[in-house]
Amino acid sequence: MSGDEQRRSRYWALARPPRGKLAEDDFELRFEDLAAPAPGEVLCRVLWLSIDAAGRAWMQGKTYRDAVGAGDAMPGFGIGEVVESAAPELPVGSLVTGDLGWRERVVLGAAALSPVEPRPRLSEYLSVLGITGYTAYFGLFDVGAAQSGETVVVSAAAGATGSVAGQLAKARGCRVVGICGSPRKQAWLTDELGFDAAVSHRSEDLAGELRAACPDGVDVYFDNTGGRPLEATLGRMNRGGRIVCCGVVSQYDVTRPEPGPAGVPGLLVTRRLTMRGFICTDYAGRFPEARRHLESLLEDGRLCVAEEILDGLERAPEGLIGLLAGANIGKRLIRVADPEGAASA
Amino acid sequence: MSGDEQRRSRYWALARPPRGKLAEDDFELRFEDLAAPAPGEVLCRVLWLSIDAAGRAWMQGKTYRDAVGAGDAMPGFGIGEVVESAAPELPVGSLVTGDLGWRERVVLGAAALSPVEPRPRLSEYLSVLGITGYTAYFGLFDVGAAQSGETVVVSAAAGATGSVAGQLAKARGCRVVGICGSPRKQAWLTDELGFDAAVSHRSEDLAGELRAACPDGVDVYFDNTGGRPLEATLGRMNRGGRIVCCGVVSQYDVTRPEPGPAGVPGLLVTRRLTMRGFICTDYAGRFPEARRHLESLLEDGRLCVAEEILDGLERAPEGLIGLLAGANIGKRLIRVADPEGAASA
Repeated sequence: MSGDEQRRSRYWALARPPRGKLAEDDFELRFEDLAAPAPGEVLCRVLWLSIDAAGRAWMQGKTYRDAVGAGDAMPGFGIGEVVESAAPELPVGSLVTGDLGWRERVVLGAAALSPVEPRPRLSEYLSVLGITGYTAYFGLFDVGAAQSGETVVVSAAAGATGSVAGQLAKARGCRVVGICGSPRKQAWLTDELGFDAAVSHRSEDLAGELRAACPDGVDVYFDNTGGRPLEATLGRMNRGGRIVCCGVVSQYDVTRPEPGPAGVPGLLVTRRLTMRGFICTDYAGRFPEARRHLESLLEDGRLCVAEEILDGLERAPEGLIGLLAGANIGKRLIRVADPEGAASA
Repeated sequence: MSGDEQRRSRYWALARPPRGKLAEDDFELRFEDLAAPAPGEVLCRVLWLSIDAAGRAWMQGKTYRDAVGAGDAMPGFGIGEVVESAAPELPVGSLVTGDLGWRERVVLGAAALSPVEPRPRLSEYLSVLGITGYTAYFGLFDVGAAQSGETVVVSAAAGATGSVAGQLAKARGCRVVGICGSPRKQAWLTDELGFDAAVSHRSEDLAGELRAACPDGVDVYFDNTGGRPLEATLGRMNRGGRIVCCGVVSQYDVTRPEPGPAGVPGLLVTRRLTMRGFICTDYAGRFPEARRHLESLLEDGRLCVAEEILDGLERAPEGLIGLLAGANIGKRLIRVADPEGAASA
């Protein structure tokens, strides 16, 4: 392929701010011709894209990053292969991760990219060995300080982060209870991942089900949802319990967020609870520690890699919309380019 | 006075669980004849009683202590003088603090009481040198980790705990902004206690007033109220901010608590906030540290002791009802017995 040909690319833009639930026609697939990389930059072919609920949250306004507004290219974490390089530290053929966006190709400064080694399943850099796994690790052990013998509840437990957090807690010797949204997910959590119990957030008696599943109360709650699971779990927290605020997926795909959970701050006082929010990248300096922990569990077969793969960049909007509705089990990924021909293949 | 005479006593019982706002006829003044102290016990004459918003919270159900129900004597922290002793470690004339209850006299085991030294203003053991001051100290410095140069917001800032917390923060070199409920309190906070600003929780534009009063955002929020002040301050918190959950006075004098504040848990995630609840007695082992700190500020004249005294046990219900409505400035106390004749006088 000539330089000109490989600089032709498609990307998804947000066509308009979503009103209520995100819909496919909120997005628009556009074409662009990229400039050749300037000194210090590289041209990447995007191989894999991570689909994350946070992508919807970014459309609600400025958070820890700029808001994604009408006309903006959709950001998103991904894995790419350098196909043209003006940065000596990233020669052609290098594999990288970074915020590549919902694109086929992208030109970025080398400093915005992290080189990774080839591995048999490259996509693991977006699931267990990437932000997803690191989020589970730091949330559970640093923010939540989960100890062996404690009861850990995880919401969105069949999702990417939740399913890793629950497995890490099991491996640490905790009692682990998942909250999820379907009998199929409940069965997967208990039968495949070894959770001690799983309850449905759609249950009319969620509080009662949690009580039965957590006879000794809850010490750590890894919250990916906010909303009803948070309110119900708050009522089961033990004195000194920790609530890990990792995400609020119940409130992303809405125009107007609900009020907060009853019991905040009253139960925090009487039970001496801590609620703490975090963003994985705050721990960037400790990523190697998380990676060692996760790799050792992978090698021992104690960590199941759950990935759900959709083929083709055109499926990215569908992938995010379905994820917000709870359609996925495990980590949802877009295979943008056949990795054949990439250095990993 | 003979032993028989000094064992005749009046006390306040909760006549019925309050429905909605607490009212005077929810209480009943009763008489009792106390038994002589058994070995290990003492008979105390109650000198001072602390009026605390928590007294209303205890009527809502079991918390960190048993609920106060219909027919129960009202609990409450106080200062007493031992007038009859069957415990060698607390001879007649000893001064003690403890949960004496809303009573004139009480028989308690010596282990439930803490001896205190006489001092010119004995009531300070219930205000700056007691639970009130210790709560402010541990909340601000341990839970909130307030540092010099940071902005600290305090709600119920003209109340007992809030007014001490704000003064401790000023002495530490923080910018201090109080939220309170009247122009008179606002003026007291800024003119008498040296707060940098004070805003009213009744303002229609509380968020706007907080924005103006906290141009650099808020690092520590010492929350005594929950409700509207919490929701408004959440929106001004800086990344990494700490919310000290000390009390929820906005939700005590109601039958059905409101939902929690919008922004929980969403803002906790995006701004990496920590909300932590605590009860002062968890820090009992460190009370001497708090006392040293508070005494040294008192000696330097950097801590104003704000006490509001109502005379006579019969005024206790009125005292609590008024406090819940925000009538007090500083620490509200009941002088049950003229301390003349007590070892402190």
